Amino acid sequence: MAKAPVLTPQAEDFPRWYQDLLNKAELADNGPVRGTMVIRPYGFGLWEHMQQEMDARIKRAGAQNAYFPMFIPQSYLTREAEHVEGFAPELAVVTHGGGKQLEEPVVVRPTSETIVNEYFSKWIQSYRDLPLLINQWANVVRWEKRPRAFLRTTEFLWQEGHTAHATYEEARDYAAMIQRDVYQAFLRDVLAISALPGRKTPSERFAGAINTLTLEGMMGDGKALQLTTSHELGQNFAKAFHTDYLTDSGGREHVWQTSWGSTTRLVGGLIMVHGDDNGMRVPPRLAPVQIVVMAVKDDEATVAKVREVGRELEAAGVRVKTDDRVDVAFGRRAVDWELKGVPLRLEIGPRDLAAGTGMLARRISGGKSPIALDALISEVPKLLEEDQALMLRQSEENRLSRTTDVDSLDEAVEVAAHGWARMPWAKLGVEGEAALGERGVTVRCLVAEDGSVPESDDAPGTLAVMARAY
Amino acid sequence: MAKAPVLTPQAEDFPRWYQDLLNKAELADNGPVRGTMVIRPYGFGLWEHMQQEMDARIKRAGAQNAYFPMFIPQSYLTREAEHVEGFAPELAVVTHGGGKQLEEPVVVRPTSETIVNEYFSKWIQSYRDLPLLINQWANVVRWEKRPRAFLRTTEFLWQEGHTAHATYEEARDYAAMIQRDVYQAFLRDVLAISALPGRKTPSERFAGAINTLTLEGMMGDGKALQLTTSHELGQNFAKAFHTDYLTDSGGREHVWQTSWGSTTRLVGGLIMVHGDDNGMRVPPRLAPVQIVVMAVKDDEATVAKVREVGRELEAAGVRVKTDDRVDVAFGRRAVDWELKGVPLRLEIGPRDLAAGTGMLARRISGGKSPIALDALISEVPKLLEEDQALMLRQSEENRLSRTTDVDSLDEAVEVAAHGWARMPWAKLGVEGEAALGERGVTVRCLVAEDGSVPESDDAPGTLAVMARAY
Repeated sequence: MAKAPVLTPQAEDFPRWYQDLLNKAELADNGPVRGTMVIRPYGFGLWEHMQQEMDARIKRAGAQNAYFPMFIPQSYLTREAEHVEGFAPELAVVTHGGGKQLEEPVVVRPTSETIVNEYFSKWIQSYRDLPLLINQWANVVRWEKRPRAFLRTTEFLWQEGHTAHATYEEARDYAAMIQRDVYQAFLRDVLAISALPGRKTPSERFAGAINTLTLEGMMGDGKALQLTTSHELGQNFAKAFHTDYLTDSGGREHVWQTSWGSTTRLVGGLIMVHGDDNGMRVPPRLAPVQIVVMAVKDDEATVAKVREVGRELEAAGVRVKTDDRVDVAFGRRAVDWELKGVPLRLEIGPRDLAAGTGMLARRISGGKSPIALDALISEVPKLLEEDQALMLRQSEENRLSRTTDVDSLDEAVEVAAHGWARMPWAKLGVEGEAALGERGVTVRCLVAEDGSVPESDDAPGTLAVMARAY
Repeated sequence: MAKAPVLTPQAEDFPRWYQDLLNKAELADNGPVRGTMVIRPYGFGLWEHMQQEMDARIKRAGAQNAYFPMFIPQSYLTREAEHVEGFAPELAVVTHGGGKQLEEPVVVRPTSETIVNEYFSKWIQSYRDLPLLINQWANVVRWEKRPRAFLRTTEFLWQEGHTAHATYEEARDYAAMIQRDVYQAFLRDVLAISALPGRKTPSERFAGAINTLTLEGMMGDGKALQLTTSHELGQNFAKAFHTDYLTDSGGREHVWQTSWGSTTRLVGGLIMVHGDDNGMRVPPRLAPVQIVVMAVKDDEATVAKVREVGRELEAAGVRVKTDDRVDVAFGRRAVDWELKGVPLRLEIGPRDLAAGTGMLARRISGGKSPIALDALISEVPKLLEEDQALMLRQSEENRLSRTTDVDSLDEAVEVAAHGWARMPWAKLGVEGEAALGERGVTVRCLVAEDGSVPESDDAPGTLAVMARAY
């Protein structure tokens, strides 16, 4: 008789599978205030590793970390008209502090363009101060009506980059570079996600931007998730906050700016891109635990061997965890590591000791076969890299095979039930976009026929990619 | 004629020296909402390095990182009577979210004991789930009436550890271990601060704790600054939040807990312990920049050499910055690196090239002498370690030489004008403590005669250390 599955199968109810997994793999709990979440240690470990990898890339892109206050005077938000219109409905407002009503209410940052510009305008005097490249890791709040853990939460964690440049071209190129060399490279090389780069249509742009670049990921159910964002802000905030500089010819000009962000939503994306009916599958380069070495039974020699193997792998630079909790049933432990998506599981029992082998279960490529313990140090890194490459291939194949060219809105809606639809943007247009929106399908981004990012919305040959989205 | 000093001299006005330095070394600006601060890249770099060093020690202590929401229902705070009494006057309250008035106002966390316990009570079922050791890096808000950047700000960054244990002894020992092996070791080995470990008097305890351990640092003006804190919470929060567990004999018991924290205040402490009239002095192990290699003049061969030397030092694992901004006056650049406290400054000019030497200025030990460029790789790490050791010695000597045994309250007040006073706690007592408080002097902590931390307030031979404090 087949056991009841640990998780709701994906094909039966994908959102429920996701929620089951968050609970069973101990990734996150809902917070007490609606829309907030508690990130549990295993979930936070994933985010922490993402932060490290991303932070290194951000620093290589020349940006320095800083920290701006979370509390922003309400009046700052109103200085950039589109910005306040976009964010006003999502703000959390502090009206009391230190036991008194505040003279001016302060908002909890939904993003930091306004407060950053207040200081950029003090710090930037002349062309010598440019470019100014800043990043911060922080929490932000956007009141969320339909929250879902990691994907849309009232409070979330993110990094937000803010830069100021002397010219339009420099800012444009920097935003594109961040999208390509930081975000796309990170998603590809670490998360094993083949994301689609594109530009947002005017209706989907960041409030206050002149252009928004996006990387869209295809989830396991064929829906889209915006993974990262990179904006050209033009001179909109610079004008609102008087962020100008002395040019080398002695004039004064407003700076050109960018901002760009990625959030804890990436943890949700990771789960939904790579997960299967048995749980998460974590790409080895990200995995906090790359291999778990398990003692099958409560046997002294076995436990000693498990610890020895663990130490050897650790010394070889592998992120390893030993599981000698022999008072917990083996099956339960194995299911738990599967749920958590640990790439390799090495099982060692009393009978293996004599043979000098263990049983290696592969979470990514599947299957289980014996392996000589003295081959581990040479084999494990190779297997991990194989799995990493396989996951990226699977992500790419899934995205490409489920993207379909369509000729009509009806066809687009039909395709969007299970994948992405594509048609010329000139043919769809803003009216088609609006009509699709009423049927739950959005234009995720605009792309050129060769897969590059178009330089403008109306560049010839521009295609619209449409999908249902999280 | 002597130039006007860049900073107000310490002896003239220490607080003003501190404020001057924050501005001139580009460490921090005041935020727009009273009591908040902007941490600029150089200041944030110091905090980032502290985080890395501390995080590694916290993980070695067995704690895992997680993240709890910043918004806490107001009702949570009221469950632990002393806790709410202590924090109510400092709370920031969100009354509106998403354009509507909230049904129950939420507070921005001043600390997370309450929300953490709400989840610990779900996660902890039996003795097998203990100990539970959690840490989080986060921002917190305590409305501040007399703010000063880094030292006391309405919003600050910190790590807060929260643990649950099966027994009183285990919790007590864990709090003491964090104080000793994480905080004291970090302060000594990285920040080169010789801090005094002790226990707080009942009136200075954390609201809701049964014991608070502290590490007190002596600043350059002889005042004290509490650098870290480590609390035994007993079962106070466990009872308020029903955090109990099934014992191995089948009964139910409340858990015993600890919490412990360190904040961006450490950046302020670092500045005030080690700084001098020329600016900061940053201990080499912490320094984001350990050596700056400067081109003295705009000369092609010089600039090329500076970059070459920079690359060589970097390849040798030294944190190096090359300064070839030859369009800025040399003197101005040198003063700037001095202000920022970079331990070593290597100046290379056209005349040095032929001799194969540079001029090495030492910020920590003082002095300036020529050094052969081909000796840098072997010499620089040695000099940095020498400077690190010197700073710790200076910090210890300063603290010891300015701590004086006294016999009366008058004498204590007199000594506290320039250092710390010490007398038997049994002689001072809570009444003496209150009387001192009215004269601006507080009991910083209680210590045993041998320098260890007393096991209780009334342990025989316990001494009170008194000072003015930031």
